[in-house]
Amino acid sequence: MRTIDWDDGAVIIVDQTALPHEERMLRLTTVDEVVEAIRILAVRGAMALGVAGAMGVALAARRAQESGKDVQAAVDVAAKQLEQARPTAVNLGWGVRTALAARAGGANALLSVALEVRDLDSAANKEIGRRGAELLAGTRRLLTHCNAGALAGAEWGTAMSAILQLHERAPLEMVYVCETRPLMQGSRLTAWELGRADVPHRVVVDSASAALIVRGEVQAVVVGADRIAANGDTANKIGTLGHALAAARGGIPFVVAAPESTIDWDTPTGGDIAIEERAESEVLDLGGIRVAAPGSRAYNPAFDVTPADLIAAIVTERRSIRPSLGERPLPLALSTSHSVDGGSA
Amino acid sequence: MRTIDWDDGAVIIVDQTALPHEERMLRLTTVDEVVEAIRILAVRGAMALGVAGAMGVALAARRAQESGKDVQAAVDVAAKQLEQARPTAVNLGWGVRTALAARAGGANALLSVALEVRDLDSAANKEIGRRGAELLAGTRRLLTHCNAGALAGAEWGTAMSAILQLHERAPLEMVYVCETRPLMQGSRLTAWELGRADVPHRVVVDSASAALIVRGEVQAVVVGADRIAANGDTANKIGTLGHALAAARGGIPFVVAAPESTIDWDTPTGGDIAIEERAESEVLDLGGIRVAAPGSRAYNPAFDVTPADLIAAIVTERRSIRPSLGERPLPLALSTSHSVDGGSA
Repeated sequence: MRTIDWDDGAVIIVDQTALPHEERMLRLTTVDEVVEAIRILAVRGAMALGVAGAMGVALAARRAQESGKDVQAAVDVAAKQLEQARPTAVNLGWGVRTALAARAGGANALLSVALEVRDLDSAANKEIGRRGAELLAGTRRLLTHCNAGALAGAEWGTAMSAILQLHERAPLEMVYVCETRPLMQGSRLTAWELGRADVPHRVVVDSASAALIVRGEVQAVVVGADRIAANGDTANKIGTLGHALAAARGGIPFVVAAPESTIDWDTPTGGDIAIEERAESEVLDLGGIRVAAPGSRAYNPAFDVTPADLIAAIVTERRSIRPSLGERPLPLALSTSHSVDGGSA
Repeated sequence: MRTIDWDDGAVIIVDQTALPHEERMLRLTTVDEVVEAIRILAVRGAMALGVAGAMGVALAARRAQESGKDVQAAVDVAAKQLEQARPTAVNLGWGVRTALAARAGGANALLSVALEVRDLDSAANKEIGRRGAELLAGTRRLLTHCNAGALAGAEWGTAMSAILQLHERAPLEMVYVCETRPLMQGSRLTAWELGRADVPHRVVVDSASAALIVRGEVQAVVVGADRIAANGDTANKIGTLGHALAAARGGIPFVVAAPESTIDWDTPTGGDIAIEERAESEVLDLGGIRVAAPGSRAYNPAFDVTPADLIAAIVTERRSIRPSLGERPLPLALSTSHSVDGGSA
């Protein structure tokens, strides 16, 4: 399922705010529209954001060229706008910068790079899933959080890619899908993708994970990532840390599936990751209707940071890293073997 | 605030399904109405359920007497109906049985006992709060889950009683209120009570607790309980276990505030507590509107069990027990001092 693509001078996305009840495509023809789509989470997920960032830059160049404006200047402005749309998402910035590097070639070169980002993303997702399925071989009962599926990547997803390839090898018994408050990406998107793939699943409230894991009803937790620090600490959707703590208590592996581009070597530890705060209304209202007590306010951090020691494995398209054993996600050039405690941070 | 009372032959309750947007009183005149009110959570919370159970039995006796039916037989039928309305809530059964013990005295004796249960509940709540506040003295930033406030007791609540008495001693800086999916008792009820009492608070999604606690933004977690096993394992609203795991990681105390009547010496461990499963629609729908993917199902356990080793203290109206240090909630007759590891279970 292609969830973000380029068509005749426009960025085409599946509008994830309309799913699972309506499959609506959005045709984005300006950078402002791409920025807005990113901001309202119509397009979301680490890898899809990378593609969106690159395509957003290509779109800016195309529009500037058509109207006879300065392409370089337009591209610079667009890059800043795009990066600021979701500051925690490292892949967004990566996609933007990857495209930017080709800006000397003009609009056509930028588009080529954006399409290449899309294709690399798709191939990387497939390989992440293959490695994840290998690592988790034998696991029949899983728990996942948020959406790291096709809707989060350009075509396969990360955690979902591993789940689907595991299911292909031998049918899964059960995937528990945490609904993922406040925006319900789990119950809306992940459940929808699992339903389409005929994988047995149940939606649970996020806070049910500890009971499920401690009672032995789950054999592994697998999630995606928004940003991985140089020491292996991993930022992901709020709630991920709680699942990791439960996995530690339950003695089951907690696995992060993410592309190499999610690793941010400029961020030494999780403590250095800026956590995006989102609107209070996401917590206080349900479907536009106030539920919380009148006058009460909310605190709505979008992400949390899972410390490296709680992470059994980070699976990328190139390798498996074992943070809980002291392995660090070293830059690949430095990391000829899976060095333990290389002290890169 | 009296949230359950007796008036002229009827049980009067604050309808908690209408809060916080409407303060509506329900006048229950039959046992079926009381059972229904318990089932839809119009009346809820451990201690309020004890009062509701006792008053339900008194109501059955009154109605039978008025219509010339067999009071004893009516009371027996009512007791069974009431107990089955919420099987996990030990206080409900306790209230029912406490009233039942007086059934030989007829309708008037049953009513006296029910009113006594109400008054004892109120006094016990106040004392639980006093002891809790003493234990937590100096704590300025707390996290709580679900509603263990006046709305859960007949007048003061348990965890809320401790929070309010702590705030009276020295103003609290912040109480983080977990919204408590799926039924939002935190954002609807606890936030409403804290707002009325002018206590600074923020509503958070349940799964944000781990990040708040691990980042050091909270100094203690305090919650109520639905049932405490003889070894100290504690059943409470789904999500409680996750907060306890985070508190252990963060090195802060996890405190349970509950009346002695919550302790169930017939239940050796948490593994013996039957966990109520509630309707899937509570998870799949928001405000009556389907949110989850079409065709996907939910698993909706209402409670989880926090193992004794994660509980710094259980505070009752009679004592403080330290389960994480090996103390067990022995029956008071056996427990002259706070014996450690008495092996009662």
